[in-house]
Amino acid sequence: MASDPALIIPLPAWVDETVDAFTDPLARDAERMALAVRLSLENVQRGGGPFAALVFSGTELVAAAVNSVLSTGYSLAHAETLALLRFQDETRGRPAEALARPVTLVTTTEPCCQCFGAIVWSGIDHLVCGARTSDAERIGFDEGPKPADWATELERRGIAVTRDVERDAARAVLDEYARRGGTIYGRPGRG
Amino acid sequence: MASDPALIIPLPAWVDETVDAFTDPLARDAERMALAVRLSLENVQRGGGPFAALVFSGTELVAAAVNSVLSTGYSLAHAETLALLRFQDETRGRPAEALARPVTLVTTTEPCCQCFGAIVWSGIDHLVCGARTSDAERIGFDEGPKPADWATELERRGIAVTRDVERDAARAVLDEYARRGGTIYGRPGRG
Repeated sequence: MASDPALIIPLPAWVDETVDAFTDPLARDAERMALAVRLSLENVQRGGGPFAALVFSGTELVAAAVNSVLSTGYSLAHAETLALLRFQDETRGRPAEALARPVTLVTTTEPCCQCFGAIVWSGIDHLVCGARTSDAERIGFDEGPKPADWATELERRGIAVTRDVERDAARAVLDEYARRGGTIYGRPGRG
Repeated sequence: MASDPALIIPLPAWVDETVDAFTDPLARDAERMALAVRLSLENVQRGGGPFAALVFSGTELVAAAVNSVLSTGYSLAHAETLALLRFQDETRGRPAEALARPVTLVTTTEPCCQCFGAIVWSGIDHLVCGARTSDAERIGFDEGPKPADWATELERRGIAVTRDVERDAARAVLDEYARRGGTIYGRPGRG
């Protein structure tokens, strides 16, 4: 009997290795962002896009991911989307009351239209952002059509939003990517 | 050596079997929607959500998917998002010039905020919708914060939008789902 079909999204092994080797505290938003920024820089150095994301349940770091659009060929493989998938994969067996709150998504750049929408259904309580949408757009990325008041839309749905956390450090990785002449994917009609 | 990590999204085998058994023409939008509606109804009958989507490259049906949020535990597993992933998986090896145009996404209900955003980066040329956002909302689904002029936003990015294709048939599946007391997932803060 043929096995059921499945979608497989390969993830790089180095992400969890870098996370495991990171021994600084991860209690505060700025400390968490420092790890995310390190992952985003390493992804650039390895030929990937300049974005990374983490998901915490209470104080526990449950999931980490980097933008993997170029390596996987999936236009969906943004850091935030992959981190949310990994989080839900890791916590699938846990009863809701066993999941420590808040669930926090830390992202090095404010979400694009796709990740914004995915966040709405993801069950997180708190979104922490580094660089601004305008910082990504300044180097040529298109963040897509989000509601003008996207942060307010999340707040209305019970998701707190904290912006500009270590923004300069996150922006520096975007600039490093541009300096290296990195591919600006995600332009209209390309994927 | 440990293998690299991967995200695995299981897909039900019956979707492709139903597609293979469907012998009616698939040339026109309404004909394509008829298959999508059949898949959405079968998904309801099998305990899934009332949504299905197809991706065509020119006249070739390349990918089919049904909403699999409940069976996979991934809030991301909406029909349109899964169909786009399957399409990109199937066509990964093909040079862009070998991909027949237009690439068309057929969905039984207008996309929610997440699928709307994913469509922007997906590389499709044409979106064909059955039931309206308001039809899904009438039975309690939340389609999330999309730009008020979401169809215009897609058109501006080169993605044609055709609405109300076999709307009554698509809406009937939503109503059947409500009649059976189906789970209304995707409420704020739930996933």
